[in-house]
Amino acid sequence: MRQSLETPLSKVKRGPNRAQYDAETAFRIIDNTLMCHVGQSKNGQVFVTPTCHWREGEYFYWHGHAKARNIKAPIDDAEKVCINLCQLDGLVLARSAMHHSVNYRSVTLFGVPELIEDTEEKVRQFKIFLDKVSPGRWDALRPINDIEIKATGLLRIKIEEASIKVRAEPPVDDPDDNDWPVWAGVVPLQQQWGPLEQDPIQTELFDTPTPPDAF
Amino acid sequence: MRQSLETPLSKVKRGPNRAQYDAETAFRIIDNTLMCHVGQSKNGQVFVTPTCHWREGEYFYWHGHAKARNIKAPIDDAEKVCINLCQLDGLVLARSAMHHSVNYRSVTLFGVPELIEDTEEKVRQFKIFLDKVSPGRWDALRPINDIEIKATGLLRIKIEEASIKVRAEPPVDDPDDNDWPVWAGVVPLQQQWGPLEQDPIQTELFDTPTPPDAF
Repeated sequence: MRQSLETPLSKVKRGPNRAQYDAETAFRIIDNTLMCHVGQSKNGQVFVTPTCHWREGEYFYWHGHAKARNIKAPIDDAEKVCINLCQLDGLVLARSAMHHSVNYRSVTLFGVPELIEDTEEKVRQFKIFLDKVSPGRWDALRPINDIEIKATGLLRIKIEEASIKVRAEPPVDDPDDNDWPVWAGVVPLQQQWGPLEQDPIQTELFDTPTPPDAF
Repeated sequence: MRQSLETPLSKVKRGPNRAQYDAETAFRIIDNTLMCHVGQSKNGQVFVTPTCHWREGEYFYWHGHAKARNIKAPIDDAEKVCINLCQLDGLVLARSAMHHSVNYRSVTLFGVPELIEDTEEKVRQFKIFLDKVSPGRWDALRPINDIEIKATGLLRIKIEEASIKVRAEPPVDDPDDNDWPVWAGVVPLQQQWGPLEQDPIQTELFDTPTPPDAF
């Protein structure tokens, strides 16, 4: 049986027909996406922070300055954060304003973050992160040092309470409107990595990096 | 004098050198972005919801099903939501893992949402929204009806408490690392609207829609 991420908290109330709870599908969307939005509260105020993320096995990781609010506050509060990642895939133009929509892949995760403090494990995770951003790059870099490891806060949640929403289809209009004389369909969003822009202070030519598969 | 959106809540603590608070800059990023992430809490749990947004003057608008949590809860709670919108512009590949980054344009807004209930004003706003998504399309659509207007919840906040963060430059490494022999620079992210995909049930040819300037 496939692992389900459905819980009372992660269960989708609106548009449940587009909801999924399958761990493998969540993993795939997480791996294909570079940035997420972390929602947390501090002293009763909600904050939403965009940041990069990565995954290893059943764990979802993100990092930040060790003293930053989005690293410290979730640990201090020990409350469940809510993280969303959403890839916009296209505009859905219908025959009525009401049925306009977007095609997208979205994952919403809940969990109490865990702070990873072990130095070796932190370095191992940073390498996994860098391999996502630019495969094979880690070994070519100036090696990481203790000050940098200490200054970087590393959080993770287990991917066990989440929902997935996906829309990937043409407009769905009221049947009576299907003959309405206006163009209807999808405007797909295309993303790709453009020509590399080498640092202008670098005059030598080096092997160029491999861009990621994720966006 | 240009209007500043800085308040004790919106003031950026980490990376303040990349922060701005100018309303015109916030407006431009808001207008160039289709989707945002709305953070709110309900019964002590934070939720982050991706949704489309638009702007008129000093007001930031979003909508949803009138009975959806992300429409009802902010009104019930009368608490400040936090909304972030972030455009990823490129990967910044440095000579050390620590100085890797991304180029981006990000706006974070705070405000207590106001529910717009006046029917005429709702319709006027939905038209502004549609003009952002596909300029000139509104008049060609099957006209909106009362049931649809009632079923759609419309929220807004005044754009008066916000921060902007922008990174748009090559890597900034430790000066001692500038000669490290690895390619460094920016991998730019390119986005465009792809070839239109007409609804397969539509056999007639119609004037094709104009895609938006925003992504």
